[in-house]
Amino acid sequence: MSKGITSRETDYSQWYNELVVKADLAEHSAVRGCMVIKPYGYAIWEKMQAALDKMFKDTGHSNAYFPLFIPKSFFSKEASHVEGFATECAVVTHYRLKNDGTGNIVVDEEAKLEEELIVRPTSETIIWNTYKGWIESYRDLPILVNQWANVVRWEMRTRLFLRTAEFLWQEGHTAHATKKEAIAEAQQMLAVYADFAENWLALPVVRGRKTENERFAGALDTLCIEALMQDGKALQAGTSHFLGQNFAKAFDVKFTAKDGKLDYVWATSWGVSTRLMGALIMAHSDDQGLVLPPKLAPIQVVIIPIFKTEDERTAIGDLADTLIGELKSKGISVKYDDRDTQRPGFKFAEWELKGVPVRIAVGTRDMQHGTVEIARRDTQTKETVSQVGLADRIELLLTDIQQQIYQKAAVFQEANTIRVDSYEEFKQVLEEKGGFISAHWDGTAETERLIKEETKATIRCIPLDNPFEQGACIRTGKPSIQRVLFARAY
Amino acid sequence: MSKGITSRETDYSQWYNELVVKADLAEHSAVRGCMVIKPYGYAIWEKMQAALDKMFKDTGHSNAYFPLFIPKSFFSKEASHVEGFATECAVVTHYRLKNDGTGNIVVDEEAKLEEELIVRPTSETIIWNTYKGWIESYRDLPILVNQWANVVRWEMRTRLFLRTAEFLWQEGHTAHATKKEAIAEAQQMLAVYADFAENWLALPVVRGRKTENERFAGALDTLCIEALMQDGKALQAGTSHFLGQNFAKAFDVKFTAKDGKLDYVWATSWGVSTRLMGALIMAHSDDQGLVLPPKLAPIQVVIIPIFKTEDERTAIGDLADTLIGELKSKGISVKYDDRDTQRPGFKFAEWELKGVPVRIAVGTRDMQHGTVEIARRDTQTKETVSQVGLADRIELLLTDIQQQIYQKAAVFQEANTIRVDSYEEFKQVLEEKGGFISAHWDGTAETERLIKEETKATIRCIPLDNPFEQGACIRTGKPSIQRVLFARAY
Repeated sequence: MSKGITSRETDYSQWYNELVVKADLAEHSAVRGCMVIKPYGYAIWEKMQAALDKMFKDTGHSNAYFPLFIPKSFFSKEASHVEGFATECAVVTHYRLKNDGTGNIVVDEEAKLEEELIVRPTSETIIWNTYKGWIESYRDLPILVNQWANVVRWEMRTRLFLRTAEFLWQEGHTAHATKKEAIAEAQQMLAVYADFAENWLALPVVRGRKTENERFAGALDTLCIEALMQDGKALQAGTSHFLGQNFAKAFDVKFTAKDGKLDYVWATSWGVSTRLMGALIMAHSDDQGLVLPPKLAPIQVVIIPIFKTEDERTAIGDLADTLIGELKSKGISVKYDDRDTQRPGFKFAEWELKGVPVRIAVGTRDMQHGTVEIARRDTQTKETVSQVGLADRIELLLTDIQQQIYQKAAVFQEANTIRVDSYEEFKQVLEEKGGFISAHWDGTAETERLIKEETKATIRCIPLDNPFEQGACIRTGKPSIQRVLFARAY
Repeated sequence: MSKGITSRETDYSQWYNELVVKADLAEHSAVRGCMVIKPYGYAIWEKMQAALDKMFKDTGHSNAYFPLFIPKSFFSKEASHVEGFATECAVVTHYRLKNDGTGNIVVDEEAKLEEELIVRPTSETIIWNTYKGWIESYRDLPILVNQWANVVRWEMRTRLFLRTAEFLWQEGHTAHATKKEAIAEAQQMLAVYADFAENWLALPVVRGRKTENERFAGALDTLCIEALMQDGKALQAGTSHFLGQNFAKAFDVKFTAKDGKLDYVWATSWGVSTRLMGALIMAHSDDQGLVLPPKLAPIQVVIIPIFKTEDERTAIGDLADTLIGELKSKGISVKYDDRDTQRPGFKFAEWELKGVPVRIAVGTRDMQHGTVEIARRDTQTKETVSQVGLADRIELLLTDIQQQIYQKAAVFQEANTIRVDSYEEFKQVLEEKGGFISAHWDGTAETERLIKEETKATIRCIPLDNPFEQGACIRTGKPSIQRVLFARAY
């Protein structure tokens, strides 16, 4: 039952591309690098949004909305920021089309903007330009704002969810009176992301800090959560930046402190994107299709009746009605698939492909014996159980599946986090199995670049809970005080 | 207590502009025509979104996401569509900036797009180009999809919420096997909008049909809901279009019907936008500030303690804690404003400005008598009531306020819908009080244009429940079979 998906072993990359399309999650659009997120994929994203949005609000944040467009000049105001984003942004130069007289629609050259507008690749500049008007004194702080929005980064090589020219995300932008408070905010939001990744995506993550090379353009410190995919490549699943006073200085945002002194405001920004969809898919799914953690599955339970006569269909339908009512009252989403245009085997394969966590099949013999067959998607195991107490059983099962999916990923990550002490070993592990490689590094950007050039591995992060450990850099032999995590990454 | 807002009578337009800014709903951004929606304004929009989204899902729709950009050539495919949108759209021509060597950031002329991209002003074209890949047979229909998104229409004269270059909206795009089904869908969604306007916005609306002049570019029929603002001008609050097979033909989307015949697919589209925020504000608010229907108020109840000593503050705080717990368990959002940096009078004015439906004030004498003072925002009436059974009373009060706000607007609309039978009378009513003017029209686009030129009044709609009535056109005297609704409009 391969549904024509390439197996992970044959070609992991191809497996991913086919799965995203065949499971109806997303597809390429007519616009280069831009995707269409299909209803089934968007339903998963909506569940992610709802969970994150609640976590943001529970930590005191409000949503707002800032313009899609950013004046070109804003980009020059923060030097490192423009370097990071100028080479990959969509530029609006005109505001009108016209008919050229022969029936062709052309750009109206007379409608040229005085200053070009950039389609936001991220919103620090326009937001800090706005905050200038909101902040006068410490009483106006903190500002704890988040925005759900689309952003555009002109990527040359794109992959659905993982790297697209346009993507959806949330970007938090906070303003604080003190450095300490801003740092605490950046840490808090990293904790929120890690909590979300582990408890909703069922994805174990390493909490860490980026090296200077890998920092967000304009940040003083970039915290991140890093996850490991089944092919041994890492994926950055969320970042939280301490921006210091860089943007406040660039946009002249000062406040009067309690003691009457004037100072620049301290900032953070933090974001996760539809890239998480890619992480979700690549971390858990298998050659039969998606494996979705129950908390994010748009359909948590599918019930498939197996009947030959209309009487059988009616009897099973009655049973299903009762069960559906019980499941819904527990907040469990359920689909009754009694299409008569498709055979049960086809339906089994389809819902397997779409990653529905629990499948319940009910046939004539089940009706005679008061049983149903339950199949769980993650382990592909089946059992025949009594119809009595079924809803309670399903509820427990969903919780168990959520935990087991996490557990499996955690075991995988553990098994694929390797400590190495020589460059030879480093390269060997990288080639043979990939994974996170914990190794000593001399702390210089130069060595980091060298290793990247030679092996395509980057420092994913310096784990936050890193112990102090004397050692020698695997590449240069120079002294090192701690191990860092290397990996090839998405 | 004017908070410095211009009164409606002095200058309605100015009153609106000031209110939007002073109540912290939105402000102009550094980008011409684009607004910043501030947290308090966005919280109202989120409530609208949540209510509408549920209504869409309850009627079988799913959300999806389509690209922000549309290839220029797509616009030429549906002739009337391009006419409607080409003159007001943002055009992306380049995909990179660069440093010009002297430190200036300029557009990299080498990074010019082969085909210019239009920032979506509406998504029919890109969506129907996508649907082509989704539809083969009647089994793939209907497609019932909605998108929450930002769109851009390059307006020259902008006003916060009412007319901005970028705005937020939802756009439903459905595909059907039959004309009948598509028409029924367009009608259904108009009913959803009317239901939402009346039961959430507390805004009575006229359900009608646009004349050919006023139809959506590319539609065969545009249904709409029209509301009346306090200054006697109309505001189009939502539209639902029957698109026929126009877009299916433009993008070659055919399906095999049950009988094996190949036919073009039938379409609808429907949308409401952040313009509804403007309608909400202008329909109900007064010279003291916003008046929000409880169902859309981010804060439904504010409790203000009035104390002199810390003991009094503690005692009132204990009472408030209990009440807040009771209100929250009823799903009522409540704010306890015990700031000691502001006096009660300031707080009263601030929450009045922000339209919180119910204010509860508790002072020392109230504590002695077991009472509180309740003030309702809509009628500005106050009463002292017992602390016993307070939560239940508040719950009923909120329901009553929601109904009364609607009722007041309905009475206003009724009183400002005038039947006239001559052009003189028409012009006189228009000048003196505005409102909806019900008058005979000869049914020609020419007369409609003439009346618009001469009076700035447009035909808002032909009401759906219009009775057949013989008459003479107010402008030309030619025969007419029904009255239509004229008004000056936003």
